[in-house]
Amino acid sequence: MTDPTEPGDFTEPGDPTNPADLVITGCTALVHDPHGDIGFLDNATLVIRDGAIVTVTQGNAATPPPPTTELIHADGQLALPGLINCHTHAPMVALRGLAEDLPIEQWFNARIWPVESNLTDRDIELGALLACAEMISAGVTAFADTYFAMDQVAAAVRHSGLRANLGQAYFSSQGPEGRERSLDFALRQRGAANGRITTSLAPHAPYTVDDADLTATADLAREHGLPVHIHAAENKDQTASSVARHGVTPIEILHRTGLLDVDVLIAHGTGITDQDLAVLRQGSGRIGVATAPKGYLKFAWDTTPVRALSAIGIPVGLATDGAASNNTLDVWESMTLTALTQKAAEHDPTWMTARQALRHATTESARAIGLSEAIGALAPGRRADLILVDLTGPHTQPIHDLAATLVLSARSADVRTTIVDGKVLMRDRRLHTLDVPEIAAELTARLPALTDRSHGRRVQHYDT
Amino acid sequence: MTDPTEPGDFTEPGDPTNPADLVITGCTALVHDPHGDIGFLDNATLVIRDGAIVTVTQGNAATPPPPTTELIHADGQLALPGLINCHTHAPMVALRGLAEDLPIEQWFNARIWPVESNLTDRDIELGALLACAEMISAGVTAFADTYFAMDQVAAAVRHSGLRANLGQAYFSSQGPEGRERSLDFALRQRGAANGRITTSLAPHAPYTVDDADLTATADLAREHGLPVHIHAAENKDQTASSVARHGVTPIEILHRTGLLDVDVLIAHGTGITDQDLAVLRQGSGRIGVATAPKGYLKFAWDTTPVRALSAIGIPVGLATDGAASNNTLDVWESMTLTALTQKAAEHDPTWMTARQALRHATTESARAIGLSEAIGALAPGRRADLILVDLTGPHTQPIHDLAATLVLSARSADVRTTIVDGKVLMRDRRLHTLDVPEIAAELTARLPALTDRSHGRRVQHYDT
Repeated sequence: MTDPTEPGDFTEPGDPTNPADLVITGCTALVHDPHGDIGFLDNATLVIRDGAIVTVTQGNAATPPPPTTELIHADGQLALPGLINCHTHAPMVALRGLAEDLPIEQWFNARIWPVESNLTDRDIELGALLACAEMISAGVTAFADTYFAMDQVAAAVRHSGLRANLGQAYFSSQGPEGRERSLDFALRQRGAANGRITTSLAPHAPYTVDDADLTATADLAREHGLPVHIHAAENKDQTASSVARHGVTPIEILHRTGLLDVDVLIAHGTGITDQDLAVLRQGSGRIGVATAPKGYLKFAWDTTPVRALSAIGIPVGLATDGAASNNTLDVWESMTLTALTQKAAEHDPTWMTARQALRHATTESARAIGLSEAIGALAPGRRADLILVDLTGPHTQPIHDLAATLVLSARSADVRTTIVDGKVLMRDRRLHTLDVPEIAAELTARLPALTDRSHGRRVQHYDT
Repeated sequence: MTDPTEPGDFTEPGDPTNPADLVITGCTALVHDPHGDIGFLDNATLVIRDGAIVTVTQGNAATPPPPTTELIHADGQLALPGLINCHTHAPMVALRGLAEDLPIEQWFNARIWPVESNLTDRDIELGALLACAEMISAGVTAFADTYFAMDQVAAAVRHSGLRANLGQAYFSSQGPEGRERSLDFALRQRGAANGRITTSLAPHAPYTVDDADLTATADLAREHGLPVHIHAAENKDQTASSVARHGVTPIEILHRTGLLDVDVLIAHGTGITDQDLAVLRQGSGRIGVATAPKGYLKFAWDTTPVRALSAIGIPVGLATDGAASNNTLDVWESMTLTALTQKAAEHDPTWMTARQALRHATTESARAIGLSEAIGALAPGRRADLILVDLTGPHTQPIHDLAATLVLSARSADVRTTIVDGKVLMRDRRLHTLDVPEIAAELTARLPALTDRSHGRRVQHYDT
């Protein structure tokens, strides 16, 4: 009997008519041991069939694959699980750089929410397409997104070839219709794009969605088996304001409305308190947190308590938030900044090693968005979402410690090839599914109408 | 009479036999107004002759330049003054990633200083060559460096085409010979490489060089008209330790040894206190400070008090320190991190705007290293040290605010072309003066000997 992980075995045992679709040879593969710790497999061969990883083995192929198989000779390159953007608002790339050097209140009330009242479906679709191009270029293969008009984002996901968990955002100010649209979207788009789209319910935040709506959301999540994606405890001021107004923290609001007993992804959490940690431990749902450190520095917030959350078993995934606050959708940059700012925040240079940062970028991010069985590792049975990275540039030579090279010297521009579900979306930095100049030109032409604030409208008012 | 700044004027008035060497057309040029504030000149033409910028004008060339002139059509690209790395140890790229996740004491005593005792001249030259390749690739056109065997670094500067201010580092533990070698190097190499090399005296730090040597250094600086480049107040612990041992801060040591009354470049200064600011104000020399924020995050230090230093008129330039602590020599990354971490450190999202960060990257950096009349701005009479940056990538579109796009969305990999003294060192990301695979291969082969620590030697012991 043939061992299916034997080098050079490009066909499944007993099924020689079903050859590999894609074989990648000669790379060094980032792999996880049974404890989830990071290792590197030299001279690795990855065999991919039907969008999934079949084998990851060391050594050259003993026999050449059949001519129908696509071959990538990745000599000298690193193969990594594709990066996962655990919290973003893709269409907001249209607002990149529009609202700089402002505190959060002015950022929302004076700039972002007035401009968002102008958004058309086409603006959102173009923004999402440009965002997908940026993420593919940066080695991001999956993202979790909540925004308005999410059918347009779903269309961009379908067209781009990326994987995404999508949720239609809503405020209580929209009335029951907001929540109903979020549910309708989640049920309608779940499993779309050949299963690359999963969905969530997406109440915006405890300061814009009231307890009744949050409780109803938790009930719907349970009834329909849907996860929830929500902003909470974004900063310490929100936590203080919540305690002053309601007598409880934002995390305690999630607890009392039942949202910690369903699968929930919490964006930011820089305002999570020590007492919140005990509350989070009581939650019976799968709880994940997304950290987007660049924006926290810009807003002069504290950062997510990654060490404390990790200590109670809550996965913290990496994120960029929207480009209106983060200026990029570059998860590689989030990985580097997480490594740097976590050391600073904990006053401990020995914490958040490069290997720990790589865990957050891979398995922890997959857990945070509820896709740990499908993605986040280069292992048989996982979806073939992976990237190839070139470390021959002068800024990544010489190599003493591959993990440190990846996290602290390499950057997203070193990603050469991006693959999702076994399909090549970027090869040697050329995008296969999206035309950036065309998308950017159409979007740029729409900016005067999009950024008009003379009408005085806003989609919402920020007042925690 | 012809206005020499008239578009299309490629010859100096009255000297038609002296045509431009290089003309760059169609770009948007970053320029400074008389107050030093940043502006952008659309559709700019730069005329370069004899290594200097002759004109920066708006509009297309009225007449074509002579055929002997090199032409760069830079349509859609940004022309910026070349970035300046105000404090680095170029050869330490050989140690990139060798000593991670350690507090500074262990970083020095257990890793860096033992390994540095193995350094050969060839290691240093190869490290410096690789560093030059990295800096050219990252849009850095000048750097200030102190290390051992600086003749090897000077050779790399000469070969690479970069500009540098170089100083041979010394400790008092080396006896008077250390200081004498530093002076010998500074006098011998001053003005080398067609003037691209300037020199400094380089006592390592107040905790490794005693007051007598520092005073002697100040006297030599005055006698020979040489600047001084020194680490001081690198972190708060050093300041506290200095006060405990000597009754004065490191900055007060610089003051009492006369080093604030000569031209001095202070590396880091994250341990500068409020009372130090008053001391710095009393200094009669040209004082500059170099900030390298990435390493401060890694070591969990505070950051340089840029706002307070700027308020008393001290220029703060951007730096990377050596790659053993910083992992890259990417000044663009330092610019982004300075913008981000200064907001966080001051708890003020309105401080360190993108335009302020660009000032630090250009004119302030040139002032910090004492070259403000030669470089740091695209203006007639300055040396032609500049870079061309591509902003058509998906991560830099659309553009609402060019300064924000540059500082917070673009990255060093977007630099397409690097020019020093009018010579093209990189064009469309292809290096013209250095062969990275060859340098990296030779350096990598030497790593086992370089990193051997079995001998138990160190170049110095860290004990502030």
